[in-house]
Amino acid sequence: MDKTFSFSLNATDGKARTGVISTPRGEIRTPAFMPVGTAATVKAMLPENVRATGADILLGNTYHLMLRPTAERIDRLGGLHDFMNWERPILTDSGGFQVMSLTALRKITEQGVRFKSHIDGSVHELSPERSMEIQRLLGSDIVMCFDECPALPADRDRIAESMRMSMRWAQRSRDAFGDRPGHALFGIQQGGLEEDLRGESAEALRGIGFDGYAIGGLAVGEGQKAMFETLDYAPDMLPTDKPRYLMGVGKPDDIVGAVKRGVDMMDCVLPSRSGRTGQVFTRRGVLNIKNARHQDDPRPIDEHCNCPACANYSRAYLHHVFRAQEIISSMLLTWHNLHYYQEIMQGMRDAIAAGRFAAWEADFHAERAAGDIEPV
Amino acid sequence: MDKTFSFSLNATDGKARTGVISTPRGEIRTPAFMPVGTAATVKAMLPENVRATGADILLGNTYHLMLRPTAERIDRLGGLHDFMNWERPILTDSGGFQVMSLTALRKITEQGVRFKSHIDGSVHELSPERSMEIQRLLGSDIVMCFDECPALPADRDRIAESMRMSMRWAQRSRDAFGDRPGHALFGIQQGGLEEDLRGESAEALRGIGFDGYAIGGLAVGEGQKAMFETLDYAPDMLPTDKPRYLMGVGKPDDIVGAVKRGVDMMDCVLPSRSGRTGQVFTRRGVLNIKNARHQDDPRPIDEHCNCPACANYSRAYLHHVFRAQEIISSMLLTWHNLHYYQEIMQGMRDAIAAGRFAAWEADFHAERAAGDIEPV
Ligand SMILES: [Zn+2]
Ligand SMILES: [Zn+2]
Repeated sequence: MDKTFSFSLNATDGKARTGVISTPRGEIRTPAFMPVGTAATVKAMLPENVRATGADILLGNTYHLMLRPTAERIDRLGGLHDFMNWERPILTDSGGFQVMSLTALRKITEQGVRFKSHIDGSVHELSPERSMEIQRLLGSDIVMCFDECPALPADRDRIAESMRMSMRWAQRSRDAFGDRPGHALFGIQQGGLEEDLRGESAEALRGIGFDGYAIGGLAVGEGQKAMFETLDYAPDMLPTDKPRYLMGVGKPDDIVGAVKRGVDMMDCVLPSRSGRTGQVFTRRGVLNIKNARHQDDPRPIDEHCNCPACANYSRAYLHHVFRAQEIISSMLLTWHNLHYYQEIMQGMRDAIAAGRFAAWEADFHAERAAGDIEPV
Repeated sequence: MDKTFSFSLNATDGKARTGVISTPRGEIRTPAFMPVGTAATVKAMLPENVRATGADILLGNTYHLMLRPTAERIDRLGGLHDFMNWERPILTDSGGFQVMSLTALRKITEQGVRFKSHIDGSVHELSPERSMEIQRLLGSDIVMCFDECPALPADRDRIAESMRMSMRWAQRSRDAFGDRPGHALFGIQQGGLEEDLRGESAEALRGIGFDGYAIGGLAVGEGQKAMFETLDYAPDMLPTDKPRYLMGVGKPDDIVGAVKRGVDMMDCVLPSRSGRTGQVFTRRGVLNIKNARHQDDPRPIDEHCNCPACANYSRAYLHHVFRAQEIISSMLLTWHNLHYYQEIMQGMRDAIAAGRFAAWEADFHAERAAGDIEPV
């Protein structure tokens, strides 16, 4: 296999793009959805089954892994891929976002962030340099710059100040990352919902130079409309010949809207987390398996889906095991949700390649609007 | 496939026996271990993976299923096999034992048992006739007589009285079961640790006539020594040409000791329940994956085991996901435990067929005595 990291576009349709990211650990077909394997597992799934849904790449969380089992331990054990039995590419976040969202006591300075573990209260530090070190110890294929992202709403000055520090941290991340053939470093655009700040951030990142560019600071409470308005211009500010990654997105219609606006990669806990709470994503929208309407329904979630949950089980069974709090409920519903997400991605890749993305998108919305099948 | 239920012995070695139970839903190689699928799922496992461990038959719990989702609902949905996606044989218990162990308020009369659901407090009744009806609605292949079993220690009079009522209930179960080709009804021997009462019970059951005979009232707190002393004579009291089923047993050494004494079938929640609590059964005894000695150990649980947990993961990984309370921990450890149990059964079947059961048993105990591998 080629030992370098590269990206090639195969087709565009409007702003939507399809292509392939090549890495020494395998190809990533774009647009790509990355299931989240927070603590070295995609919850309730075996990795071979995640692969069977069509996933080419997983996301791992630096924050969780640095605390437990620690990056040094994973390194001694041969790296994250071996540890979790996933041979294909892994992208790791920088830890910054989760320090902000999961820890109560934290102190941010120009140097980095000092915080207390949400697991045991122990004190840790993260900085651009330490984040690069941790992601190297994990063996990550796609490494993310360490950045800061204020929760929205925040005032413009706070967003600008934070973005500029993140750009200084991006340079430090670039310097600390060094030269690692076959591994990629992605910069992260910030700037909230302010077009000029997004532009300033993109300029700074392009000046430093990265293997890919993420759009950060969205999907943090601003709503789909504001997110799409930002995505109407933010991806265009990033280089055409590098992958564009929208972090932490989203619901199925968020994903379709992002791809339409030129995004190549996304990740979200939603399909797996929802699998555990009984929320099921289908072509016909969202259904809640705990609803009593399913308890006598012999039909599958979706008769056209060939995931194990739909191929082998009735809604009545899935309702029963959810109500009985059986682990198989999380296993099957997560599998279905991840399968459905990957089906959307494949559908979009095919449609873009065929130049019929607009028709595909119209069908996608029409099927959802029709709603779930009638109760039995 | 043959539409009748039958049992044929292939070989004996001392009192140990190996053979095949034939049913319209497939063959059951004996001695057989039946994983427990309480609420229409073997917890944390997909049924195809339970099958991959070597299981020929599952056990379902009448008590749990009658309360949720109800036998009538499962019947409307096509029976328990379709409902839970397990095409092979299913044995269901009668519900009696779990009424005694799980419900607080209950009233036992000659007619049957009245009790409150542990789920929602609703009032239900079970009797020989109702238990037969429920097991028929579930579509069970091997149906168990409805009986009563006092917790040990109990005085001799109480044990005798209970056993005699269970024998009257056995006759009522036989009458209510009727003639159902391809489906089997098993009687259950009671009598506690009293040899004469066990003999009286066996006589009564043989007088009625069943397709198989269970040994009930053991593994209820009497300890392995007392259980083995009872098993030194109890199986011999039952017909040679029918399967003998020891209910609710047990640890690996319990199972080996029972087969040695002429038992053909067993069931127990231990391998699956232990998988969820981090207790792992191996050739070298029991290990607890949460122990810190495993946290840096790159070796599998057992280098000779080819289950997915051992083939793909280190002890360090399994320790990590157990500590992080990840679902994959229950999935992998349950899989290993069920795989190991089935490996014991296959080992015993082969050894009995080859006339070397004593040597196999000596090896089994010697490997356990050697203990787990040294820490890294
Ligand atoms: Zn499905
Ligand atoms: Zn194993």
